[in-house]
Amino acid sequence: MDKSKTWQETLDLLGEDEILKRISRYVPPGQIDDDTAQIKGSNKELLINTDVFVDGIHFSQETTEPIDIGWRVVAANVSDLIASGLDELIGITVALITPPKTKWSWVEGVYEGMNAALENYGGIILGGDCSKGDQKILSVTAIGSLGKLRIHRSHAVPGDHLIVSGPHGLSRLGLALLLKEPLIKEQQINKVLKEQAMLAHKKPKPSVEILRALEECKPKGIPWRAGGSDSSDGLIAAIESICNSSKCKALINKDFLPKADYWPKGSHWDDWCINGGEDFEMVLCLPPEWAFECIKTIPCFKHIGKIEEGTPSISWSDNHKKIEVNKYKHF
Amino acid sequence: MDKSKTWQETLDLLGEDEILKRISRYVPPGQIDDDTAQIKGSNKELLINTDVFVDGIHFSQETTEPIDIGWRVVAANVSDLIASGLDELIGITVALITPPKTKWSWVEGVYEGMNAALENYGGIILGGDCSKGDQKILSVTAIGSLGKLRIHRSHAVPGDHLIVSGPHGLSRLGLALLLKEPLIKEQQINKVLKEQAMLAHKKPKPSVEILRALEECKPKGIPWRAGGSDSSDGLIAAIESICNSSKCKALINKDFLPKADYWPKGSHWDDWCINGGEDFEMVLCLPPEWAFECIKTIPCFKHIGKIEEGTPSISWSDNHKKIEVNKYKHF
Repeated sequence: MDKSKTWQETLDLLGEDEILKRISRYVPPGQIDDDTAQIKGSNKELLINTDVFVDGIHFSQETTEPIDIGWRVVAANVSDLIASGLDELIGITVALITPPKTKWSWVEGVYEGMNAALENYGGIILGGDCSKGDQKILSVTAIGSLGKLRIHRSHAVPGDHLIVSGPHGLSRLGLALLLKEPLIKEQQINKVLKEQAMLAHKKPKPSVEILRALEECKPKGIPWRAGGSDSSDGLIAAIESICNSSKCKALINKDFLPKADYWPKGSHWDDWCINGGEDFEMVLCLPPEWAFECIKTIPCFKHIGKIEEGTPSISWSDNHKKIEVNKYKHF
Repeated sequence: MDKSKTWQETLDLLGEDEILKRISRYVPPGQIDDDTAQIKGSNKELLINTDVFVDGIHFSQETTEPIDIGWRVVAANVSDLIASGLDELIGITVALITPPKTKWSWVEGVYEGMNAALENYGGIILGGDCSKGDQKILSVTAIGSLGKLRIHRSHAVPGDHLIVSGPHGLSRLGLALLLKEPLIKEQQINKVLKEQAMLAHKKPKPSVEILRALEECKPKGIPWRAGGSDSSDGLIAAIESICNSSKCKALINKDFLPKADYWPKGSHWDDWCINGGEDFEMVLCLPPEWAFECIKTIPCFKHIGKIEEGTPSISWSDNHKKIEVNKYKHF
């Protein structure tokens, strides 16, 4: 197809169905004939999640290539499913809204990114809808099957250890680098860290394998119970949501903040670690024995604190000072 | 909640989760704690569909109250599921994008309408997401279980009779009445027809019961095979999509156009009947014996033509002149 054409021109030329057939390698043949898609019945429970991505709020031309937007919308959805206990991704539906003058190459790039993510995570494009609108918007609904462990925000209990599946703040640093924020320009940042941060921002990779490993390492005799969430809104926002749902408080050890290697020192950098947002890691509350096994056997997991009885709140474990939540806002 | 407040003010005051809890009677307790919803596993196949609704394209302040928008987004989705063979609606996910200054009462009205539709069709609000944006947009994904009969656009075969589950053009007339279009002002239109048309536009009611009745009346010995679609894009557009997918042609009997009682005469009115759009009826291709049983036992069904071998096209059965498709466009 002619990449210089607009989305409107391409739609007029080929029609919505033909376009979808051409750009979505992961749409099964025959699927597009019908408005609805069919999902094979099975006795496995299903998980479902919807996320919206709005131009200028969740992504921007400045920092995100179309292919990265496509990857991201799938990855962000999968992250929510993983943090609920995903077994296998079944597929996604995609609602695409674009101004008619949007370049066809933009749409193609977004679908390329979604295809790449589906290649990585499994699953197909089940269907969707498109319409013109004033702004570029993607609304993606992901469906997957549930594995052995159903993780709920409300399932943390006092005595649990708080662990996370990876370092935090990388995506925020990546964004700062892409936007050439002044603070970053002045500071010497390690080259490896820079690359890791850009990748974390542009192509986040929430991991189903880590969830599998978590299930594998559960000591016998302990029930299948875990409190948790992903950290897409930031580490502290994730912990806050768990505390609110589980009606308990969290104590965070300042010495154990989950920072990447070469992460600079300073309160600003600590804040990016705990409030940066869009980290897509698992934040879990587990019985001490299980948390211990995780940290021992799965290198990426870090212990960061514990859960206690009390009014929902988050404090530093040394001085019990409250930690301020600076939630990544979409509004 | 204070109805004079904006959506942004209400969000700042209560937070997204608390708002969703208050306005969605059909969100089960505990559901909102997690990002994902869980659907009970069963050996029944599932149907899934996503539709977007954009302010100024799919609805407008002028013609649609918030409560009617909410009803419509659910009904339009359910219509697609019915036209695929829905057994029971499981639920919907709702992505809501609004300018921050949108009145809180608008959001509340839309959810009221969705709640009312779910009360009628069954199913719950499984979850969703919201974000600010330049324009009011709803993206709804509906999931339901599949019944005995899987209807596909591609399953029509030559020899089938073409039947529809109700009159067409009503929604277009309703829109014209709401917009006070000149043609309508000049013409005497029956009062009953007017009311029926306004209702069809504002509160379309695709019927699961008619699908059940269709399944019930299938003569023994005939396979569970039906070609079909809903007529949300217009009657002729629906037939065209069936012809394209099934690689066959359709002949329409001009004397059998599915018009409502008191529908005025004239080519303009015929065009609204076949190309009006947003009718949300079932358009079905069935073996003659089954089509005959339908018309005999289910009063709303009308025979309108038949399916023959040939290059995909739609013609009048008397003079074999091609019928022009004037598709209801969302782009």
